[in-house]
Amino acid sequence: MSIDHAHATAALVDAMASITGPRGIVPAEDQAPYLTEWRKRWTGTPALVVSPASTQEVAAIVTYCAKNRIAITPQGGNTGLVGGQIPLGGEILLSLSRMRTIHEVSGLSKTMLVDAGVTLSAVQDAAAAENCLFPLSIGSEGSCQIGGVISTNAGGVNVLRYGNTRELVMGLEVVLPSGEIWNGLNALRKNNTGYDLKQLFIGGEGTLGIVTRAVLKLYPQAEEKLTLVAGLQTPEAVIDFLSLTQQATGGLVSSFEFMARPCLELVLNTIPGARDPLAAAYPIYALVELSAGKGTNLTAMGEHLLTDALEKSVITDAAIAQNDRQASDFWHLRHSISEAMNHEAKGARHDVSVPVHQIPAFLAAADRAVTALVPGARPIAFGHVGDGNVHYDVLPPAGAGDDALDPHVPTIENAVYDVIDEFNGSISAEHGIGQHKLDKMAARKSPVEMAMMHAIKRTFDPAGLLNPGKLVVPPTDDH
Amino acid sequence: MSIDHAHATAALVDAMASITGPRGIVPAEDQAPYLTEWRKRWTGTPALVVSPASTQEVAAIVTYCAKNRIAITPQGGNTGLVGGQIPLGGEILLSLSRMRTIHEVSGLSKTMLVDAGVTLSAVQDAAAAENCLFPLSIGSEGSCQIGGVISTNAGGVNVLRYGNTRELVMGLEVVLPSGEIWNGLNALRKNNTGYDLKQLFIGGEGTLGIVTRAVLKLYPQAEEKLTLVAGLQTPEAVIDFLSLTQQATGGLVSSFEFMARPCLELVLNTIPGARDPLAAAYPIYALVELSAGKGTNLTAMGEHLLTDALEKSVITDAAIAQNDRQASDFWHLRHSISEAMNHEAKGARHDVSVPVHQIPAFLAAADRAVTALVPGARPIAFGHVGDGNVHYDVLPPAGAGDDALDPHVPTIENAVYDVIDEFNGSISAEHGIGQHKLDKMAARKSPVEMAMMHAIKRTFDPAGLLNPGKLVVPPTDDH
Repeated sequence: MSIDHAHATAALVDAMASITGPRGIVPAEDQAPYLTEWRKRWTGTPALVVSPASTQEVAAIVTYCAKNRIAITPQGGNTGLVGGQIPLGGEILLSLSRMRTIHEVSGLSKTMLVDAGVTLSAVQDAAAAENCLFPLSIGSEGSCQIGGVISTNAGGVNVLRYGNTRELVMGLEVVLPSGEIWNGLNALRKNNTGYDLKQLFIGGEGTLGIVTRAVLKLYPQAEEKLTLVAGLQTPEAVIDFLSLTQQATGGLVSSFEFMARPCLELVLNTIPGARDPLAAAYPIYALVELSAGKGTNLTAMGEHLLTDALEKSVITDAAIAQNDRQASDFWHLRHSISEAMNHEAKGARHDVSVPVHQIPAFLAAADRAVTALVPGARPIAFGHVGDGNVHYDVLPPAGAGDDALDPHVPTIENAVYDVIDEFNGSISAEHGIGQHKLDKMAARKSPVEMAMMHAIKRTFDPAGLLNPGKLVVPPTDDH
Repeated sequence: MSIDHAHATAALVDAMASITGPRGIVPAEDQAPYLTEWRKRWTGTPALVVSPASTQEVAAIVTYCAKNRIAITPQGGNTGLVGGQIPLGGEILLSLSRMRTIHEVSGLSKTMLVDAGVTLSAVQDAAAAENCLFPLSIGSEGSCQIGGVISTNAGGVNVLRYGNTRELVMGLEVVLPSGEIWNGLNALRKNNTGYDLKQLFIGGEGTLGIVTRAVLKLYPQAEEKLTLVAGLQTPEAVIDFLSLTQQATGGLVSSFEFMARPCLELVLNTIPGARDPLAAAYPIYALVELSAGKGTNLTAMGEHLLTDALEKSVITDAAIAQNDRQASDFWHLRHSISEAMNHEAKGARHDVSVPVHQIPAFLAAADRAVTALVPGARPIAFGHVGDGNVHYDVLPPAGAGDDALDPHVPTIENAVYDVIDEFNGSISAEHGIGQHKLDKMAARKSPVEMAMMHAIKRTFDPAGLLNPGKLVVPPTDDH
């Protein structure tokens, strides 16, 4: 590699401070929150942490680094789950946190222009203030930043209805690896003039450019909501219920989540105030949210759906939330799964997807593979079934101790990903590649596809200075 | 250019026939439908018209051409409006028309796997047979092919609700300029593993690869529909009505079209059976379609919306279609505009977009610019107002004769595009660039953006063999 592993020399600090002013240089004693991934899986040792306040400052930093062959790791809210935002060593960590202006919200055009450092919840709030909806919703929304959300093409609970982040971005401003600024900030719903360049930066994990501003797509606010929980016997029934629900509501389903009974039990056992949503226990649950405009009678629609599903024996029992409090109790069960799992024991986690109708077969095959490796291991499946996206996690056998699974995690991961391959699924449905899945991705993609990815990386960033060691690492001659 | 301008030598014909068999070679006497754009604006002189029957045959043809430096123009249903599908001279015209198998439709996963040569209406029908909806709908749907639809990122009347073609493609198979086959045919709603390569081929106008198969995204079928026409006083009111409609229906609007009174009058005067939809005449009309699942009371929703809009004086009159026949009469007015214009006189046509709330200001400015150039010229505005997409056409002054505008067309186009620039709009909202707008696009995009497009073209197709002279033409050293 011909990248300099930089050190915080006086010259480098001066050069950066001359661009950002002293406020832009994060002193050593304040750097900790930037250096370590929040679950403490990755820690980086950057040369410097710099926090520019404008696109022009970002461009000046990147230009300086390009000239001096210093690598850069861009970082948003540091909530990523695959280590993409954590430097390896010697990079400048460039935090977008100080760029947090919401420039414009148009309720008529349903668009918003924001800086990269605005948090997702601030975007949601600004949309709501104009009676609009920015539908993306993920667990970290209070601290993740829209630039990171875009660079990782984040997903979440409303993808079924509104799409991933990719579908919610209309325009981007990006600082390219050369330091040039690309202004692609259009607010057009239709624009067929040339290659859609923004798509490369969405989900590009900061390896092709640094997103500095974005035009986001808003929706009319859903004024009515209906939340329900159903108890079902099998994963197959969940897929049938999804299909019934989509058909009966004409696509008004904003979320369709599932959790197996073991998930729910973990939550009931560990989270204060969590209550079993139905009178009896069922092998598997669906949590469904419908949303629509004021005129829609969602209650009638939901009741009709449930009657039909009960009659057809697709579901065994169900409850419609009678008020906001009950709806939020239902959602609380779903949102507490990760916390409950952390409380129970360390495990193996997998963010995978398969074609929707393959979910039951995938779950059966993965359970077989995992328990063959570690008898008694407890698979915990939940997630966005409407998108084919399963969070397939594995806990150690009951009573085996917090660390019992640790030695098996790599083997379990490989086994689960091998099953994913059988179903033409994805080994990273929404979390991305980062550092974590680099080799696993490279081992799975065809040589043709890897060659295209390498060619694009080399075309945009021939010196490999932007977020090196993440997502895609083209082979170099001097290796 | 270092591309060979090929001729249909016996050697070339033999080489192609050895790949496709004799059926794959279109004889000279049958070539006419492939050579000329349907409005007769562009005619090409290819070396040969070849129609392979499989991805492997496409790959073999492209491999042969890459070795022998012969250029290729891929062609679908030959319905494009900017000459992208018409060869310049000496290319092999590669028609995808024989590849028309629908491989798989999954009602549960809401996906469909099809060959590139399947017509859009065949895709719609296959979806409907599984009680699903493929929402894309454009005028040429009976003959355009899905490969061309993808390569041009086609739009149409349902974009507001379901997005452009880009949002409806889940996976692609593409033959690359080297002749290699990229299998990106996944059927995953979420897949964050690396750059989203398919995005480059969607809207890439066949300049980076030839789309051979695709996985398409389906929706639940809308079982209820409501169609209405409203009469309004100003373009500003149309935007207010759009906003009211979106809000009142929570996003159930599948189409929101507008047409100015002169449009409607052209249709009433020239199309047999066309009837004024409202009792009186209004300066501007909105044609709105709501669609939803069975449980939704769209009639109550529509009536409530209209009462509210009338009370607020946003609209002046309106009619809800009472049956399918009346709904199709309303749509017939909209769909007949192009035909009525052709009947009236030759004009200047512009497929442009601006941010939605800027439509009224754009229309006013464009009308001023056009009538300043040609006093008495008749601007005819209609289109997909919900997407900010205006078909802004100009007819000669009344009675001035069919050809009267001809000498002014280039000046009028430039004037309209200059106005578009003022509003940060697009000079090609849905039709693409092709041959027609190559220079106009290049003159408008920033050097940074043009350089990125050139770099991508060079990376994928360094010899410039795929659809040369379309969309993007990188500067060459020997020019």
